[in-house]
Amino acid sequence: MDNGVRFNIPHCTGKETDYLQEAVATGKISGNGMFTKKCQAILEKITKTPKVLLTTSCTDALEMCAILMEIQEGDEVIMPSFTFVSTANAFILRGANIVFVDSRADHPGMDEDKVEDVITEKTKAIVAVHYAGVACNMEKLRSIADRHSIFLVEDAAQAIESEFKWSDGRESVLGSIGELGTLSFHETKNIQCGEGGALLINKPEFEKRAEIIWEKGTNRTAFWRGEVDKYGWVDIGSSFLPSELNAAFLYAQLENVVAIQKRRLEIWEQYYTGFQPLFETKKVRAPFIPNYAANNAHMFYLVCVSEEERTNLIAHLKSVDIHAVFHYQSLHASPYFKNKHDGRPLPWSDTYSKCLVRLPLHLHLGTEDVARVITSIRAFYSKKR
Amino acid sequence: MDNGVRFNIPHCTGKETDYLQEAVATGKISGNGMFTKKCQAILEKITKTPKVLLTTSCTDALEMCAILMEIQEGDEVIMPSFTFVSTANAFILRGANIVFVDSRADHPGMDEDKVEDVITEKTKAIVAVHYAGVACNMEKLRSIADRHSIFLVEDAAQAIESEFKWSDGRESVLGSIGELGTLSFHETKNIQCGEGGALLINKPEFEKRAEIIWEKGTNRTAFWRGEVDKYGWVDIGSSFLPSELNAAFLYAQLENVVAIQKRRLEIWEQYYTGFQPLFETKKVRAPFIPNYAANNAHMFYLVCVSEEERTNLIAHLKSVDIHAVFHYQSLHASPYFKNKHDGRPLPWSDTYSKCLVRLPLHLHLGTEDVARVITSIRAFYSKKR
Repeated sequence: MDNGVRFNIPHCTGKETDYLQEAVATGKISGNGMFTKKCQAILEKITKTPKVLLTTSCTDALEMCAILMEIQEGDEVIMPSFTFVSTANAFILRGANIVFVDSRADHPGMDEDKVEDVITEKTKAIVAVHYAGVACNMEKLRSIADRHSIFLVEDAAQAIESEFKWSDGRESVLGSIGELGTLSFHETKNIQCGEGGALLINKPEFEKRAEIIWEKGTNRTAFWRGEVDKYGWVDIGSSFLPSELNAAFLYAQLENVVAIQKRRLEIWEQYYTGFQPLFETKKVRAPFIPNYAANNAHMFYLVCVSEEERTNLIAHLKSVDIHAVFHYQSLHASPYFKNKHDGRPLPWSDTYSKCLVRLPLHLHLGTEDVARVITSIRAFYSKKR
Repeated sequence: MDNGVRFNIPHCTGKETDYLQEAVATGKISGNGMFTKKCQAILEKITKTPKVLLTTSCTDALEMCAILMEIQEGDEVIMPSFTFVSTANAFILRGANIVFVDSRADHPGMDEDKVEDVITEKTKAIVAVHYAGVACNMEKLRSIADRHSIFLVEDAAQAIESEFKWSDGRESVLGSIGELGTLSFHETKNIQCGEGGALLINKPEFEKRAEIIWEKGTNRTAFWRGEVDKYGWVDIGSSFLPSELNAAFLYAQLENVVAIQKRRLEIWEQYYTGFQPLFETKKVRAPFIPNYAANNAHMFYLVCVSEEERTNLIAHLKSVDIHAVFHYQSLHASPYFKNKHDGRPLPWSDTYSKCLVRLPLHLHLGTEDVARVITSIRAFYSKKR
């Protein structure tokens, strides 16, 4: 038997194919069909958001945010440098200038205390990226956004079912705190359909226009509801809505969200416990979860002491057929952006770019697979001493 | 048994579910996987295009065209008014001003002889929409575009497997003549996956950048090919690539393109023959196919003498449980665009908006269903006399 441990294997619950067949049998597999509506309803419940629209990707949901906020040429949008390119591209496509902020010393997420320093008259929005599903300090960010009358968007791509706890004890689901939030259902996510996403609309004034933009700039959604007698071109927009094939697949996953999250958390805890000796001796740094943040077990990462050590660790794991990966390259230092960046050093973003390693975390891993990853990494560090 | 005739029922070949399961079994259902590559290969063969990229929709493929052509604020793009909103929105999102051209007297497609009149210094591209899969006169349009050094894009959303015959007898597949072409796999199309599309790249200089834009502005495709040692952010872009779920489904359809087209053409011919008495007495106008254009049997439409007559015809058909529809509303007269239009009257576009009716044409129709539609429409017209 193959004893290799792959970085990711998309999980199926077993109902995906049934629902795909059901979608085909309805005679409608274009967007906004039965399964799209079912997914949106379940997501509204999970996220406690008044209105959710499925999209073809989290990227597309972010592009909808940029259109809804009427981002214009020259508007500034603040976000972390340590994030996926789509966080930035979605706003650049509408003409925004991106202002990147460093990561925190204790966590790859954006340093909330650095945000206010870069706000100018041109700032239109802050995009909070909940790295690894771990909440940004939304109390700080919400307060900054409100004080400056700018939008707060949550890129909750990795953050399904995760939460933020306010200082008064209330809890909010991630994606429901900003005026707009986005989720990803890319195959590497907890809940997935290969490629997919959702837009969470928390500001009711956005709802009507969001439906129009989603339906290619037409008022077709209102037409289906019988609110207008024929539909036409009323706004800009794109084809942001996914096929019912994606929605049917996704629905099977969403129905099983509790079981999926439970198992992911077990794996996460097994890693965390297994690496305790390395954490205690500071051989490698543990993932940090602030006390206001929940853990949705999207990711298990380690932070090595140097890029060289990370390279060696990944190579060592590869030699024993375990597939670990790194990501993101600091966006402010990328080939595309380096000449556009204002020159502020963002050292923590660079550190995570060089030193962070992600371990396999998916539902095809058994306890023994996780144990083998732990043993292999502990062996790597004991050899080093 | 239900004797109703629905306007469209998406056809399945029977292999879709097998391929969906196969995709899931590969352990990779995000974009650019095995089935995406298989679909692209088969499309390159069918369209005789050097490079094809699958997209989440034809809308998205058109947006890629706008990015590749570097459409800027104030650039002008020429296209028919009688088309789907996405033809226009894709370019408006990049800042273009749209210049709409009327339809032909004999066909809803763009009047090629009106194009040169609206070319200015700011014109960047002509978008030829092959309405109903019937070719525009590409010899005229290619010559105009070349003479003015502007781009020619083919919105071949409805035109899979259709052709244009040049005056020297050569034949070109639609989508392969412009610098860029786009296809749709929306569920109403001959070949479909609910929502889907493809970009056809006929200008090799666009290939490398197209792959980058498709992969969210990263050089990931080059990375997979081993051309670069890590991938990063190098350009603008979006998540234009579909899930393997869509690609797997689509592949089953593409494998059967010959049989699907054959059956569609039979239905089309049955309609055409059945309506001969109405055509001869000019009660209703037949679809027109110029001698340089092939017929891919995407659509069977009739043109009524008035809007009132069309309304009555659709109502009559509905009363006998036959679902016929109209489309498009002239874009130049739409709520979104009417104040942006330069005031030129586009009477033929308005005529088709008011008088064109589309009949059911899909693979769930038997000969007797088509016969019933014909009989019902002939009965409508004989009652009128």
